[in-house]
Amino acid sequence: MSSRRNFIQQSVAGLGAAAVLPLLGQSAMAAGRETTDSNLQLGIAGFTFYKFDAEKSIAMMNRVNIKNLSLKDFHLPLNSSPEKIQSVLAQFAAGGITIYAVGVIYMKTKEAVDDAFEYAKKVGVSLIVGVPNPELLDYTEEKVKSTNIRIAIHNHGPEDKLYPSPKNVYDLIKNRDERVGLCIDIGHSMRAGQDPAKAVLEYNKRVFDLHIKDVSAAVKDGKAMEVGRGVIDFTALVKALNKIKYKGFCSFEFEKDMSDSLPGLAESEGFFRGVIKTVG
Amino acid sequence: MSSRRNFIQQSVAGLGAAAVLPLLGQSAMAAGRETTDSNLQLGIAGFTFYKFDAEKSIAMMNRVNIKNLSLKDFHLPLNSSPEKIQSVLAQFAAGGITIYAVGVIYMKTKEAVDDAFEYAKKVGVSLIVGVPNPELLDYTEEKVKSTNIRIAIHNHGPEDKLYPSPKNVYDLIKNRDERVGLCIDIGHSMRAGQDPAKAVLEYNKRVFDLHIKDVSAAVKDGKAMEVGRGVIDFTALVKALNKIKYKGFCSFEFEKDMSDSLPGLAESEGFFRGVIKTVG
Repeated sequence: MSSRRNFIQQSVAGLGAAAVLPLLGQSAMAAGRETTDSNLQLGIAGFTFYKFDAEKSIAMMNRVNIKNLSLKDFHLPLNSSPEKIQSVLAQFAAGGITIYAVGVIYMKTKEAVDDAFEYAKKVGVSLIVGVPNPELLDYTEEKVKSTNIRIAIHNHGPEDKLYPSPKNVYDLIKNRDERVGLCIDIGHSMRAGQDPAKAVLEYNKRVFDLHIKDVSAAVKDGKAMEVGRGVIDFTALVKALNKIKYKGFCSFEFEKDMSDSLPGLAESEGFFRGVIKTVG
Repeated sequence: MSSRRNFIQQSVAGLGAAAVLPLLGQSAMAAGRETTDSNLQLGIAGFTFYKFDAEKSIAMMNRVNIKNLSLKDFHLPLNSSPEKIQSVLAQFAAGGITIYAVGVIYMKTKEAVDDAFEYAKKVGVSLIVGVPNPELLDYTEEKVKSTNIRIAIHNHGPEDKLYPSPKNVYDLIKNRDERVGLCIDIGHSMRAGQDPAKAVLEYNKRVFDLHIKDVSAAVKDGKAMEVGRGVIDFTALVKALNKIKYKGFCSFEFEKDMSDSLPGLAESEGFFRGVIKTVG
C-alpha cells in the first residue's frame, strides 16, 4: 500500500497534470484494498464528512486507518472543471486515499444521468452509488452498457418515496444488466423492516456497495448511532457477506455528531473490525 | 443507571457534605455495571486520562459509554483532605461515573502500603490496583486481612524489575490470602512473552482486574496501539474470560496519542465490544 502511495505521490510531483488524471483513474479502478481476515474491505461513504473539507476528511480516514472513499459532491461538485477534478484527486491520492466510487448521486432527469456517468468517467471510477428515478432505469441501464460503469442503487428508508428498502430496488433491477445493482444502506433497510443480512444473502451478486451504520430501533424513527449500540445484528451481516464472498466495500456512513464524528466513526469501525476478526 | 445517577445527584445537592462520602462509598462498592452479552464489564484505567482533568475525563467516558473508572492519583492525590476527596467523588458521581478501584499505586515502603489502604478506604472502594515491592507482600497481605480490601498486583513488562509478567506476580501470591490477586496488563504481559488468554485461564479466580490495550509486537519494544491493530488475540481472551466467569472489569488503558486519545479509545472499546458480541 505504502509503495503504491509513494509511487502516486512521486507521479503527482514528477508528471504534468495532464498525465496525472488517467494514472489516478487507473489506481482508483484497482481500488487499494483494506483486507481483513475474511477479505472484507472497509471504506467510508463520503456523506460522513459533510461538515469537513477534503483535508480534514483525509486526516480522519488515516486516523481510523480506512483508505477507501465513495466521493461525495461537496468534496468535488459534478460540474467541476478538469483542473479542479485533477486537483482534488491528487489531494486524496497524496493523502493515501483511494476513490473507489462516486455518490450518492440523485438523478431525476436524463441529463442528470448523463452528468453522473460523465462525472464517474472523469473521476476514473467504475462505480456510481446513485438514486435514478425509477422511470429513468431503462435509460440508466443503457448508460451502464455503453460506459461499462456499474451503478449501485441506494435505498433510503420508510420515508423515501422511490426506494425505501433494498427490496424496492431489487424488484426493479433484477432482470436488468448484471452491472445494475444495489448499495444496501443497512440502517435505512432496518428502519424499513428489512433485515440487512437476509437482504445480502438474497441479492448476492447484485450487492455492489454497503453503507454501514447502526440504528436505535427497527422503525421509521430509529436514530442513527455508533455501530454496535443499536439493533442491527452485525455478526449475522458479516457471516452473510462471507457466505456470498462479497467483493465490494463495507463503507461506514456515520451520521450522528456530524460536527465531531471522529470518535463515533472510530468506535463504529472498531466494532465492525472486532466482529470481522471474531467471525474469521 | 440514570435513576441511580439522579438519586446521587439529588443526594449531593440535598445533603450536607458529611453525608455524601459514605453514600458515594456505598455506591462505588456496588459498582454500576456495564453488562454485555457475556456479562463482561467494561471500565477505564485512570492512566488513560493522564493529560486530562476530571471534567474532560468524565466527558470522554460518557462519549464512549463506559462508566467505571480505576481512579489514578493525578485526579485525586493520596494525601488529599476529606473535603477534597468528597468533592472529587461527587464530581465523578454527578457525571455518572463509578469509581470501582484506585490505582495503579506504587508501594515501596510500609508507610506507602498504609497510605494506599487508608486512601482506598476513604475513597470507598474494596480494590486497590497496586505494585507493592515483593518484600512488602507479607505486610500487604496483613493489610488485606485487616481491612478486607483486595489488592490486584499489576505487571509492567520486560523492563520491570519487580513484576515483568503476570507469572512473576502469581508465583509470589498463589499461596496467600485469596483477596491478594492480579491486575493483568495484557499489553505488558504480551511484551513479556506471556499470552494473556492463557494467563487468565491459569490464574482464574486470582484475576481481579485487567488493563486492556494492544501492542505492535510481542517483544520488549512493542508499541501500545489501538485494540485490534496489534498482535493480541482478543477473541481468545474474551473466550478465556467467559470460561472462568470473570467477575472483574475489563478496563481500557489507552497509551497512544495521549493528548488526543478519544478516537483511539473509541476504536479500542468498539473492537472489544465487537469481539464480545460475536463470541456471545
